[in-house]
Amino acid sequence: MFKKVLVANRGEIAVQIIRALHELGITAVAVYSSADKDALFVQLADEAICIGGPQPAESYLNMSQILSAANLTGCEAIHPGYGFLSENAEFARLCAACHVTFIGPRPEVIDRMGDKANARQTMQASGVPVIPGSDGTVRDVAAAVTVAQRIGFPVLLKAAEGGGGKGIRTVQTTADLPAAFRETQREARLNYGDDRLYIEKLITRAKHIEVQVMADSQGHVVYLPERDCSLQRHHQKVMEESPCRAITAAERAKLGAIVVKACQQIGYTNTGTFEFLMDSRHHFYFLEMNTRLQVEHTVSEEVTGLELIKAMVRVAAGEALPFTQADAAVQGYALECRINAEDPRHGFRPSPGTLHKLYLPTGTLGVRIDTGVTTGSAVPPYYDAMIAKLIVHGRDAAAVRTKMARVLRECQLLGIASNRDFLLALLATPEFAAGTCTTDFITTAFLPRWKEDADVTA
Amino acid sequence: MFKKVLVANRGEIAVQIIRALHELGITAVAVYSSADKDALFVQLADEAICIGGPQPAESYLNMSQILSAANLTGCEAIHPGYGFLSENAEFARLCAACHVTFIGPRPEVIDRMGDKANARQTMQASGVPVIPGSDGTVRDVAAAVTVAQRIGFPVLLKAAEGGGGKGIRTVQTTADLPAAFRETQREARLNYGDDRLYIEKLITRAKHIEVQVMADSQGHVVYLPERDCSLQRHHQKVMEESPCRAITAAERAKLGAIVVKACQQIGYTNTGTFEFLMDSRHHFYFLEMNTRLQVEHTVSEEVTGLELIKAMVRVAAGEALPFTQADAAVQGYALECRINAEDPRHGFRPSPGTLHKLYLPTGTLGVRIDTGVTTGSAVPPYYDAMIAKLIVHGRDAAAVRTKMARVLRECQLLGIASNRDFLLALLATPEFAAGTCTTDFITTAFLPRWKEDADVTA
Repeated sequence: MFKKVLVANRGEIAVQIIRALHELGITAVAVYSSADKDALFVQLADEAICIGGPQPAESYLNMSQILSAANLTGCEAIHPGYGFLSENAEFARLCAACHVTFIGPRPEVIDRMGDKANARQTMQASGVPVIPGSDGTVRDVAAAVTVAQRIGFPVLLKAAEGGGGKGIRTVQTTADLPAAFRETQREARLNYGDDRLYIEKLITRAKHIEVQVMADSQGHVVYLPERDCSLQRHHQKVMEESPCRAITAAERAKLGAIVVKACQQIGYTNTGTFEFLMDSRHHFYFLEMNTRLQVEHTVSEEVTGLELIKAMVRVAAGEALPFTQADAAVQGYALECRINAEDPRHGFRPSPGTLHKLYLPTGTLGVRIDTGVTTGSAVPPYYDAMIAKLIVHGRDAAAVRTKMARVLRECQLLGIASNRDFLLALLATPEFAAGTCTTDFITTAFLPRWKEDADVTA
Repeated sequence: MFKKVLVANRGEIAVQIIRALHELGITAVAVYSSADKDALFVQLADEAICIGGPQPAESYLNMSQILSAANLTGCEAIHPGYGFLSENAEFARLCAACHVTFIGPRPEVIDRMGDKANARQTMQASGVPVIPGSDGTVRDVAAAVTVAQRIGFPVLLKAAEGGGGKGIRTVQTTADLPAAFRETQREARLNYGDDRLYIEKLITRAKHIEVQVMADSQGHVVYLPERDCSLQRHHQKVMEESPCRAITAAERAKLGAIVVKACQQIGYTNTGTFEFLMDSRHHFYFLEMNTRLQVEHTVSEEVTGLELIKAMVRVAAGEALPFTQADAAVQGYALECRINAEDPRHGFRPSPGTLHKLYLPTGTLGVRIDTGVTTGSAVPPYYDAMIAKLIVHGRDAAAVRTKMARVLRECQLLGIASNRDFLLALLATPEFAAGTCTTDFITTAFLPRWKEDADVTA
């Protein structure tokens, strides 16, 4: 096992990694930006080195500075956390060149899954379902009709070179296709000078379902119960649950078998997450793979009782996974709410500042609060607005919802704006209670309603 | 269900009760002494009433003031927590007279189990094993030999009117009995003017094992996995575990059946705990029953996932127990460390004051910290020195011990002395690791060693 490990991250995840290292008997070295000099993770580390200015490029993304710090302090490995350099294959390669173990998958695998088109092909080849569509572009209306009828309406007609919302059109029936095809072609030609189109099935009212895996270098792969992360705003997750209340044990096992097989085929090691869309008929479509630890790994820890950061470190050190598939069974239900320093009443704009007072209701069965801040902490403007994760674990979703509402109501954050009331309102919706929210729920259904409530209140 | 409940306690347990009430949708009313005006539990309550001065007799033991507050605020029930009025049958009777539900057993049962001799007889009649001894006093040496040979050596010869360590003698063999009998008789005559003696088996190197029960008024009784509270100092518990690592599932089931039967025979309702000594051959001897919630109920919550305060409120409102015996199965292992404001290096003298800084390492899987204080809180000199409970739950004792040590090391308490380092040292002993500590361990084995270490360090 490693004797000394560097933590190349900040905030709550740096705190969690330092704790996992300490429990493994490993000395933890923190690196920090000048904006984080008084941060909790710096205090908890055994050694801490300032690696640059507040801008991420100057410090947490500064590969050579981080590797220098690792060398200087004699660290044998680096845990990258999430964000920053956690999915950077170049950094993983540089670590290897410096004889420092990167705690994550191999750089080739990071590369392979980082390219979305490549990932889609790799997954399809491994038997993972992807969004149905044409193989490449379609030549004419007749070809488009054939593909659309095969994959089923509604479909998306998309310019091959498209992006930014131009040259994209939803088509509901065969009758609508010819006109839509011609219009999209014209738009594509106008905007991109290239009128080639391709077709993809439109997945509407979908849930975001993801499956985390843990794999060691000895061929063991374990999948964890899926997470439902459908509550999103601008592709930012807001609340995450495990397991998904809409999924059966049989579906869980089937999805698990698919991702385990894919991991075995690509020789995946350490941790990663397969993200899927699930449509209303419970068909799953691969979206992308995250080759790192995710913010919401906590709900998986809660429902399984497994400690994932420790397992990552063990696997990176060459040990076998410290658990088997049988250990990863679902026990109850867990929900996470992300507390952000942001103002939901003003377009969710970030709200950096100083936490003059912070009260997070620690204690009580089933409540876990992971945070990197305390009363008096600075919330710098340079980084992610997420400052605490409230995680509640219990027998079922109803009990957890009640407890989470109580926990949220007790939170006090003075000195910054927070999304606490937004989370409370979201938690109180009948849709959340029913477990039926899809990825469009917050934007199309909840926020307009909530805004109206605010206008009435004002 | 009740709409409004008064919490007749302070500190961390008042916080826990308020939270349970809130999760049940009940309005929580706090009563507090002038010393607690800024306390966390006062802030968390929906209403709070100052009921008197800092001395317990003026406030938390002031029955008429508490009942006035309940009437004034329209509370339908009172939760007494632990300590203070929680085992006071007179208070329970006064509550009934004021048409307020006392959340605990019926006053007759509190009375019956409060008298230790009475409790012993009641338990013996219900088939609960008690410490073997003579039925009343023994007339002469011959009678003493008969009893001693029946119950087995070593035995205690005790003056019927004895107390304070006089007129008590340990006897190891039959040969020693005649002389010991005469000497103890003489001592008893000299000290108490009464030379009657009785005999009790000496239980040496015993573990303190206790079994909590929950019972409703519909005849359901559930026992929880036993707790091992052998780590004591001056009869104050220091650390508590569940389950006891030395006890088998068969022993657990047998002990459980005994206490459930006893509860049914005495018509016990709500919560209570049977305390036993367990000798090295795993024989159990009833010590006493606590007719209230205990500090260490938390470890039982952790290993079962059951919420005991909520269950107490439901049962008091006439509902059935919200769980069955099958729900109370052991899941993993839990350990609690009590953080006290006291100075172990100076005879454990209390250390009241102001917590200029308090950092309790909230977050991470399996860590629960129940407390009634925050940074800036006062620790008044009038009450118990216990200010936080660190509870760690995990797969097994080794994992929990490692995590608890990490948690203890992270704690920061500035402004008062605490027993943190004492707890850390205790946790690190091979005896604790082996799970073999008996009730005399801290006083006879650990403290002399620890004192020596301190002298060496100094």
